[in-house]
Amino acid sequence: MNKIERIQQWLQDNNYDIAYLNDPISVNYFTGYQTDPIERVLGLFVFPNADPFLFVPQLEVEASKKAGWNKEVYGYLDHEDPFKIISKHIMERLDLAPKNWAIEKFSLPVSRMESILVHFPDSQFVGDVSKYMEKTKLIKTPEEIALLQAAGKEADYAFSLGFQAIKEGKTEQEVVAEIEYGLMKKGVMHTSFDTIVQGGANAANPHGGPEKTPLKRDELILFDLGTVHQGYMSDASRTVAFGKPSAKSLEIYKVCLEAQLTAQAAVKPGITAAEIDKIARDIIKKAGYGEYFIHRTGHGIGTSDHEFPSIMEGNDLVLQPGMCFSIEPGIYIPGVAGVRIEDCVAVTETSSLSFTSTSKELTYID
Amino acid sequence: MNKIERIQQWLQDNNYDIAYLNDPISVNYFTGYQTDPIERVLGLFVFPNADPFLFVPQLEVEASKKAGWNKEVYGYLDHEDPFKIISKHIMERLDLAPKNWAIEKFSLPVSRMESILVHFPDSQFVGDVSKYMEKTKLIKTPEEIALLQAAGKEADYAFSLGFQAIKEGKTEQEVVAEIEYGLMKKGVMHTSFDTIVQGGANAANPHGGPEKTPLKRDELILFDLGTVHQGYMSDASRTVAFGKPSAKSLEIYKVCLEAQLTAQAAVKPGITAAEIDKIARDIIKKAGYGEYFIHRTGHGIGTSDHEFPSIMEGNDLVLQPGMCFSIEPGIYIPGVAGVRIEDCVAVTETSSLSFTSTSKELTYID
Repeated sequence: MNKIERIQQWLQDNNYDIAYLNDPISVNYFTGYQTDPIERVLGLFVFPNADPFLFVPQLEVEASKKAGWNKEVYGYLDHEDPFKIISKHIMERLDLAPKNWAIEKFSLPVSRMESILVHFPDSQFVGDVSKYMEKTKLIKTPEEIALLQAAGKEADYAFSLGFQAIKEGKTEQEVVAEIEYGLMKKGVMHTSFDTIVQGGANAANPHGGPEKTPLKRDELILFDLGTVHQGYMSDASRTVAFGKPSAKSLEIYKVCLEAQLTAQAAVKPGITAAEIDKIARDIIKKAGYGEYFIHRTGHGIGTSDHEFPSIMEGNDLVLQPGMCFSIEPGIYIPGVAGVRIEDCVAVTETSSLSFTSTSKELTYID
Repeated sequence: MNKIERIQQWLQDNNYDIAYLNDPISVNYFTGYQTDPIERVLGLFVFPNADPFLFVPQLEVEASKKAGWNKEVYGYLDHEDPFKIISKHIMERLDLAPKNWAIEKFSLPVSRMESILVHFPDSQFVGDVSKYMEKTKLIKTPEEIALLQAAGKEADYAFSLGFQAIKEGKTEQEVVAEIEYGLMKKGVMHTSFDTIVQGGANAANPHGGPEKTPLKRDELILFDLGTVHQGYMSDASRTVAFGKPSAKSLEIYKVCLEAQLTAQAAVKPGITAAEIDKIARDIIKKAGYGEYFIHRTGHGIGTSDHEFPSIMEGNDLVLQPGMCFSIEPGIYIPGVAGVRIEDCVAVTETSSLSFTSTSKELTYID
């Protein structure tokens, strides 16, 4: 069964009349067509016993066909009512108005659900395609893992660019510029999120961005970055020493590294996501820094940077070969320093395979 | 009245018990805190007669306070149920469970609406904050227009970088790399969308991206780019001649330029959005290229790249001073060439003010 046949089977099994996929990542998964029409309407409509159709803004009709989608595609112009056109094409495929809908509840805005209700007032939104996609995407195929490895190699290259760019007085933002320029010159046009370079105490704000702050010697510098390779994402973090950081900074690095290495070494089929989180967290707690590790140990990765499984307390999911996720403990002491060390890995038959290979031993840059 | 007091007034006027804002752009508008926690929960909760609160992932609590939000902010850890915590803080402020909710229907995913229903099963989603925000943001203040002008200046600089980078054999992607590197070196870290550089027939796919295709002489090259300046966006397009393009290419440039200049010159208070669209469209139709102008003439711009007003057929909105939008007719002939010329403007008391000033007369690059 191909991907479309599998979701059709799921619709049949659950007595759903129709599935409406609106998330560009899901649409790409089924059609091979990558787009993000922002506020314009995008949809893949799948039926248990009729041909699916793709619906895009008119100016994307040709591109979607060129990308390899060989079923019907319909477009709409900006001044037209997209849901009126969608309804018409739905009724070309069904004898009765669809009642039991499966929608992507994690991404479909309420307004679009209401647009459906205008045309099909008896609709019930009983199925959740988001959950179907989560499950479908949880175990990666060998081909997908190869793409994640390729993305990981790009992240390794990005680290090398970043480490080379470190120089006293250069700002965090200038280092980001060197990384992204170097990537683009190799044809890597998209990062999976805004590249993070943070020196010293700035790094204690784990979701902050790079500032116009000049880098200072004798501090730690945190890098968190990722690229997009044929739709698959990398995400990795390294923290390096510029000169001779304080004893405190070196101590939290050591603790964080032990947590990262131990948790990553524990990954194998049969262990749970929560157990991996606990291994990393216990090491940091025991060293006295538990209160400074304020996020989960990891998140899934694939065609999005944050997907399932979550490596966190309470997630008793048993790891299986093909699951892919980050292991990224961090210690953030406000006003002092922040450390995060992160690889993304795939679970193998016996342990795990890392997508990035930049050394995790503390790198000293002079 | 400040921004919070104005939305509280709106809640009172409409008998809404609570507003839940989830769009990062809206949250930024009210709190000054810029973030995008992706799949994590973000919310600003506003009440007609009680203090609002901000809800963010725990690792952003400090940053949101630092950004200047001086009311309550609550955080949650990854393994906690965010809506349980939200419910608790709502009930600290209300005597009865909220029934009449105002939500952002254009951005709130269905799953979040269902999470509300778990805790407050009698909720009715009667109010649409998206529409409130649309209306609120439709007329820009002089301060906002100054920021849009500053963003426009960055776009002009980006064009100069791009035009300088044109060289035979250089790829479209390499030109993008030069533009974005030059911007980052000036501290402009975010583009408002993926920079577009398309040469020759590639430009006939108006939403396609830059390719690894080398630029060829004697073709048109289309640039569409924008930056983010303190949360405000620029968006502008120019098409330039590299060498001596074909007579056909030059002809469609001339038609498109006339459409753009004429439509832009017609902007003034009192004319409708649809009339502006018609002015541009009629010129292109009359020249015989109507079928190749397959999108609206423009979109609003501000804290997002695509907002209201839409400059298109059917939109009888009367333009008023302070409205800001693009004027961007385009002609795309598959296999031949694509031309788009775009400025964003603010409606003034008598006409309009353009945010970009790069020449629109055809620029020849040799």
